[in-house]
This record gives sequence, structure tokens and C-alpha cells, in this order.
Amino acid sequence: MVVIDINCDMGESFGNYTMGNDAAVMPYITSANIAGGFHAGDPHVMDETVALAAEHGVNVGIHPGLPDIMGFGRRTMDATPAEVRDYVVYQLGALRAVAECHDVTFQHVKPHGAMYSMLSESPDHARAVMEAILEVDDDLVYLATDSNIYEVTEEYDDLRAIFEGYVDLEYNADRSLIIEQEKDSRDPDLVAERFVDIATEGQVEAANGETIDVPAESICIHGDGPNPVELLEAIQDAADDHGIETAPLSEIA
Amino acid sequence: MVVIDINCDMGESFGNYTMGNDAAVMPYITSANIAGGFHAGDPHVMDETVALAAEHGVNVGIHPGLPDIMGFGRRTMDATPAEVRDYVVYQLGALRAVAECHDVTFQHVKPHGAMYSMLSESPDHARAVMEAILEVDDDLVYLATDSNIYEVTEEYDDLRAIFEGYVDLEYNADRSLIIEQEKDSRDPDLVAERFVDIATEGQVEAANGETIDVPAESICIHGDGPNPVELLEAIQDAADDHGIETAPLSEIA
Amino acid sequence: MVVIDINCDMGESFGNYTMGNDAAVMPYITSANIAGGFHAGDPHVMDETVALAAEHGVNVGIHPGLPDIMGFGRRTMDATPAEVRDYVVYQLGALRAVAECHDVTFQHVKPHGAMYSMLSESPDHARAVMEAILEVDDDLVYLATDSNIYEVTEEYDDLRAIFEGYVDLEYNADRSLIIEQEKDSRDPDLVAERFVDIATEGQVEAANGETIDVPAESICIHGDGPNPVELLEAIQDAADDHGIETAPLSEIA
Amino acid sequence: MVVIDINCDMGESFGNYTMGNDAAVMPYITSANIAGGFHAGDPHVMDETVALAAEHGVNVGIHPGLPDIMGFGRRTMDATPAEVRDYVVYQLGALRAVAECHDVTFQHVKPHGAMYSMLSESPDHARAVMEAILEVDDDLVYLATDSNIYEVTEEYDDLRAIFEGYVDLEYNADRSLIIEQEKDSRDPDLVAERFVDIATEGQVEAANGETIDVPAESICIHGDGPNPVELLEAIQDAADDHGIETAPLSEIA
Repeated sequence: MVVIDINCDMGESFGNYTMGNDAAVMPYITSANIAGGFHAGDPHVMDETVALAAEHGVNVGIHPGLPDIMGFGRRTMDATPAEVRDYVVYQLGALRAVAECHDVTFQHVKPHGAMYSMLSESPDHARAVMEAILEVDDDLVYLATDSNIYEVTEEYDDLRAIFEGYVDLEYNADRSLIIEQEKDSRDPDLVAERFVDIATEGQVEAANGETIDVPAESICIHGDGPNPVELLEAIQDAADDHGIETAPLSEIA
Repeated sequence: MVVIDINCDMGESFGNYTMGNDAAVMPYITSANIAGGFHAGDPHVMDETVALAAEHGVNVGIHPGLPDIMGFGRRTMDATPAEVRDYVVYQLGALRAVAECHDVTFQHVKPHGAMYSMLSESPDHARAVMEAILEVDDDLVYLATDSNIYEVTEEYDDLRAIFEGYVDLEYNADRSLIIEQEKDSRDPDLVAERFVDIATEGQVEAANGETIDVPAESICIHGDGPNPVELLEAIQDAADDHGIETAPLSEIA
Repeated sequence: MVVIDINCDMGESFGNYTMGNDAAVMPYITSANIAGGFHAGDPHVMDETVALAAEHGVNVGIHPGLPDIMGFGRRTMDATPAEVRDYVVYQLGALRAVAECHDVTFQHVKPHGAMYSMLSESPDHARAVMEAILEVDDDLVYLATDSNIYEVTEEYDDLRAIFEGYVDLEYNADRSLIIEQEKDSRDPDLVAERFVDIATEGQVEAANGETIDVPAESICIHGDGPNPVELLEAIQDAADDHGIETAPLSEIA
Repeated sequence: MVVIDINCDMGESFGNYTMGNDAAVMPYITSANIAGGFHAGDPHVMDETVALAAEHGVNVGIHPGLPDIMGFGRRTMDATPAEVRDYVVYQLGALRAVAECHDVTFQHVKPHGAMYSMLSESPDHARAVMEAILEVDDDLVYLATDSNIYEVTEEYDDLRAIFEGYVDLEYNADRSLIIEQEKDSRDPDLVAERFVDIATEGQVEAANGETIDVPAESICIHGDGPNPVELLEAIQDAADDHGIETAPLSEIA
């Protein structure tokens, strides 16, 4: 039986500002990456987002960012490994307490934006974060977005890690992602096909036509594109057709 | 055997800004109320403060504030019970994760400044906070600074609560505290005497000479006055002389 | 010739978060109240908003708020008159410099949300703000939203002040506004009729059917409702039909 | 007659947090670089600092920083030239309005910390800032801390620029400064000697004994070291002995 997780960034609204389509997307996913109030989200938004996850039986994880809400956590900054670690621990703990208020399983960590890039480029930063995760709770899963980071997770025997793939973005042949400025609508059939290829073969067709390895046990969907629900319905249908089961990270790692 | 806790606000530095005398005061106390980054403190300061608590075997609790670092959390704001609850849960969780990184016992909650006043004046706000504490962890202790709040804690059978007294401030006859703008040096002998009176008799002499009830199982010391160490040494000597034992809140409540 | 100003709150986006319909609304107004980065807006959004005003020949003013972006400046806080004054001067100066970069006329001050309410309720707060405006530039116009504030402006001979009316909200008989939680679509004909009544008669029909005085020389439109452009087109048509000219505050006060 | 400006960073306190020795240092300087609320300072601190400058006849300029008060503006961040420009214009305008409230001459711009480094390393960032300064007010002086930046200022005929030297830090032979982690007391005689050498010869002895050119018309003193007043008194005495006059930037540029 093939089992795979579907994760999505959630809880990116802030105060009176709304972002994303959390209510529409939540029914289709198994793991929600919830912003921790540093690049997006705030305590009240976190509470509402976790309540929504509870309603749909979705497990949650922290999507920690750099302290730069004005830049949406997308600007790298010259923060030390210890500083980044402290930002992760802080946001992780904050969300975990919210999850406990709603009896929701707090299961994972997936750094956001520029923080993710910093960890990908600096193993010292990545190690600081991973060691802190192990100290807080060694049952937590590190959701790894690229190979650099996945390799660092493998240095730690105790650290549960899952590699994720993308189905609404195209891959280069070197497994890097092609990020587009404008989020266009995606073709549901193509996205569903990629989902099946990754889930069943661990492979996907890159933009240049080559078949590349994407050994992912979770796929990430962008909830703020023009048609996430359409994509998620196509994925669900494809999963049913191919006997692919979806389950949260904590049941896979 | 008389047993009492000694608590102090800690971790109020922020970035490059320092406040208080944490390193000097920590050896003398049993419970540290650590700022949660909303009115004071930040993730790095919290980490350093908890590391210091670990070194001295001090238990920690969250000292949550309103989101107003510019006003040091001392300005009441028109926040709803749910908003205040969310601020507390967020900061509580953040600090608890830091405590886990350092194997320090996370034991209590003591709201700061204007948040404390809001809970004291509005039972609805107080209840929202207390119910959230119970949902996160019903072993946590609510450290109650005044009778209004203590009365609300008594509505909850499961909520551990401790009433605290002050020894470096004077009381009015109605048990309200006389807050002074300037923090003058306090007389160590007088402070030590108040400590013994509260610990052994549950009573203290008010400013007008009356003896009033202060049934406290914890006393609070201000770490940012001119002579906190001198006061804490006098308290320690007095405790030794009168066979008073000091212990953290979690061993008393 | 009847001349009236049309003002609208603008520049309320923040970082990656968008709010309002500035590009659609700007062509129809004469004065833009631009958020100053405390309750909404940020330096980059301010620059873009002023550039848009420049494009359409719209004069700008500061719409200063309390330092509470998480609460959108809608929560009163216990800030002193001097603190509120300092917040206004700071935001006013910031926007004025942006206006100079774009050769846009910086003309007025209109406090936002809870700051507005605080000035309305406390003449001491209102005076602190008005005296500071006079010190910075006594050509600036204070745009007064209610009678309490308008009365305080009249204490200052040198202070230019304009009273504003609302055409997309209903009035109570005592000239207070009926604020609705949900912003429904407004009837363009009704809004245009109110506009004409205020502009030509200085009167409007209140919700209870009474005719009340609204001696306004500016009317405020909400840009974040469901149909602001429809309303503004109806207003423009009515202005043309009734020979009402629109002009910015600085040409009226 | 030799004339030189003495500048110092000021207004770095924030809310309840104090930093520096503004009251002690202000009497000795001619130009105050005042923090703009992004890396340090806040509207109320700015008001108090400008009031202090008014009392001592000191001219003021903005010391703008990156939006990172937790990192005291010392962490470079991946902000675009337009973003940095917007941060400078915003803070510049804010302080200028405060200066107008106190009838203090607003005269100059000197970027702080990581913002300074970004401008020094990226001429595109530097140009964006300088062009904005010219648009706001072409009488303003750009206070240039290093040669990279000074060279960019020379691209603009209309931009007044002053190069500054340091007397309480040592220079390397390449005119870079030796920054020390700990701020030790400086020898007043040595500092005064450097002051005279820079003011009269435009030269100073580097750490390796070489004489290097420092063609400065302003010298910067650190107000947060252990003995700034002692150093400033020695400088004043040396100025008197050598017939060196001190005057604010606006009278020199």
C-alpha cells in the first residue's frame, strides 16, 4: 500500500489582513504547516487555524519564519545559528501549546522562506535547528524541502525526517524548483499525474523532459494559488484511482 | 515546617537592551517569571535566561504581557478575553519549549503589568486565561498577585493557584500595594521582617500601622531595584534564623 | 458655487498583505488619508500609494494610528497625550517626506480608529495633537470626523479645520454614525442623494427619518466596501448634475 | 581657521530601555545622529532627544536603520535599493517633523549599522538613498563614514557630503576601522591628539604606525563607551589650545 502525506502552508493571515484559502483547503490535506507569528500569523490567527485543523482531523506543524513580517520572512538576514534556533524553538513551542488547547496532534517542523534557504545553505544553521527539535521532542518530524537539508537530517539517528515533493511547480533536471513570480492556474490533470508519479514511483518528469528522482513521502500544495481546491480534488481522485492512501507525517515517518 | 517560594521577574532584556540584574538575583530565588517577548524579552534572551535558571536549579514560569514592547506592557488595551488568552497560550508555549531545551521545570503563569490589571478587573478575561492554562497543562500553577484574581482561580477545582505577597513594597490597609515611581533602596531588615511575618503568620504591617492578612505561599522580589541582592541575602538569613524553607511553586501548590 | 472634498482612507496594505482598492478608487477622490505604518501601511506601501496619488493629482494627508498593527489600530490603549502626539508627529513627518519625493501636496491630518476615538473623548489628547500640527506646519488641515473634535479645533485660531460627513453610512439623529460589522453594498442612488444633500444643504436624513445638520465640507468614502467605485461614479454624476465642484481640502479650508 | 564638526549617535533608548549617555554627551557635540525608530529609538525618545538637542543648540540628523530592533539594525538583510530608500525617507521625515516641533535645525543623514554596510557595499543601494535625500531636501548633508560611500556622494553635484573620521577607534593602514567587541576606556590624550591631527592635518597614525589620510570635516565620538565625557572634554581642551573651532555640519558642508 502506498501512503503519502499532503501538506500545505496555513495560517498566514495577520490581524485584519487575510491571506490564503485555509477553510477551503483544509478538508483535503493531512498536515498543515502553520505560520508562527514571525513572518505571518499571530496568536489569534494561530488559534483559529488550529481550530480549523481540529475540525478536519489534520495534524499540524510549525512553519517558523524569520522575524520580518514586513518582508513576509522572504529576506535572508545575517542571523547566527543560535538566533535562528531560538526563533524556531519559540515559534514551535507557541504553536504546540495552541495545538494542545484544541487536542490536535503537533507533529512537525518546516521552516519558511528565507529561513529555509539559510538552513539549506548553512549546515551549521540547519544543525542548530535540528538539535533543538530533538531536545524539545524527538518524536517531531522534520519536513525537508531539499536535498541539502535532508542530508543534514540524516546526521541525526534520532531525528525523524521526511522529504517532500512539489506537484504544482515544475522541477529542473537537478531537482531544483522553478519558482514563478505570478502564480498561474495549474492544470489539474498534470498535477494529479505528478502526484501519482511521485507517490508510486518516486519519480517525476522535469521541465526538460528528463525523468528525475523525487523520493518524497509528502507532497506540498500551495494554498494561495488561483485553483488549489481544483488541484486537490484532482489529487484525491487520482489517489482513489491508484489506491494511494493519504496520511499525516506522524504516521509515515 | 514553613515553606515558601521566592519569585522574581526575569528575562526583561531585549536585543541589545539590558534590564534587571538576572545573573545576580537568580542564585537567591526559587521561581523565575520570564518575559515572553511581547512586552519584554525575545527568543534569545529567553534562552539565556532559562540557561541561567538551569544553572541555579530555579523553576521557571511565563510572565506574559500585552503585545506592546514600546510601552513595556504597562498600557491597558481594549483586547478581548479571547485575544488575551491567545497571547498567554502563545508565550506560555514558547517559553515551555525553551525550558525543555534546558531540562528546566516549567511550572507557572504570572501575567505582567497591564495584562495583570485587565485580568484583575475583568473576570471574563481571567477565566479565559485560566481555562486555557488548564487545557495546555493542568499541572501548571497560576501565581495570583491579588485577591480578585485569586478568587477567580478558586472557581476551578483543577487549577493549582498560589497567592503571592510583596516584601519590598508597602501595603495599604486594604491589601493593595503602594507603587512608587522611583525605586528607592529598601531597608533589608524591614524587608526581612516582612518576609518572616508573611511566611510564618500570613500577616504583615500595613503603611498605616494596622496588621493585615497576606496569606501568601510565595513572595515576590523586584530584581530591578537598587539593592535586590542585599534584600535577598537578608531574606535568606532570616529564613535560616526562623527555620523557613524556600521551595519552588511546583512543590508548594 | 458649491465646492466639496472627497476623502478616502488609502495605503492600508502591509508588506505582502493587500487591503482596499486604492488603484480603482484614487481616480475619483480629491484627498487621500494615507496610513502611516503604525496600524497599517509600511514605508514601501506609502511610497506606492503616494505615487498613485501623484498620478491622479490627489492631495495626501496622514491617517495616523496607534502602534498596533496586529489590532489594525482599533484597540484603544492607555497612551498619554504626549505619546499620542509623538505618534502623530512621527507618522506625519514620515508621509510628508514621501510626498516630497513625489511632488505631491501634503495637506492634512485625520487620525484613525482608536486614536480618533481617544481624541474625541479626551480634549487633552486632541489638544496635544493639534498643537503639534501647528508647530510642524500651520498650513495643515485637521480633518474632523465628529463634533467633539471639531469643537477642540475651534480653540485654535491658526488651525485650519474641516468637518467631514459620511455618505455610505447612516446617521443617528444625534449625528453619530451607525457602524455595521459587515460592509454591505450601498445603494448608489441613496449615497449620491446624501452627497448632494450634504454638499448643498449641509443636511442629511438620519436613520429615523429626521433631517439633521451635517455641515461638512468634505465627505468620506470607504474604499474597502463591496462597491466603492460604483458609489463614487454615482457621486460624480450627481456632482455634475447639481453643479457641485470637488476640490482637495487645501483649496477649501 | 580650522573648523570641524563633532557628531555622536543619540536617541538609542527605546520605550523603558535606556542606552547611551545622551544628557551627558549632548553639551559637547555639534551634530546629533538620532535613531529613527527602526533599529532603536521610538517617537517619544525622539521627541526627548530633540528637546535635549534644542537645549544645547545642537543640530540633528537622522540615523536611519533597518527594521530590526531585536538585532539593533546590525544584521544585514536582503532588502532592495527601493526598500532601503523607503526606510530612509520614512525615518528622515519622521525626525524632521520632530525637529520642527522644537525649532531645531534638521541637517543631515547618516545610516546606521548594517544599513551603512549595505550602502558601502552596493552603490545601487547608496544611490537610491542619495537620490531620495535630494528629492526631499537638497540642503541636507550626507555624512559619509567610508570612502566607498563618499565616492558615490561625489556622483551628485547637488548633494552636500562630509567625510567623517573616528578618534576613539584605531585605523588600519587601509583606513578601515578596528572595531572592538568590548568598548574599553580610551586614553583621553591619545584621542585628543588624533582629533587635532585629523582636524589640522587630515591625517592620523594607523595601528601599524603609518601615517594615513583621513580628510574628515567631522569626527564621530561613541557616546556609549565607558568615558565619553572625559574624551569630549579632552577634545574641547585640545580644540581650544590649537585654535580649532567646532561647528555643525550645516555650517561646514
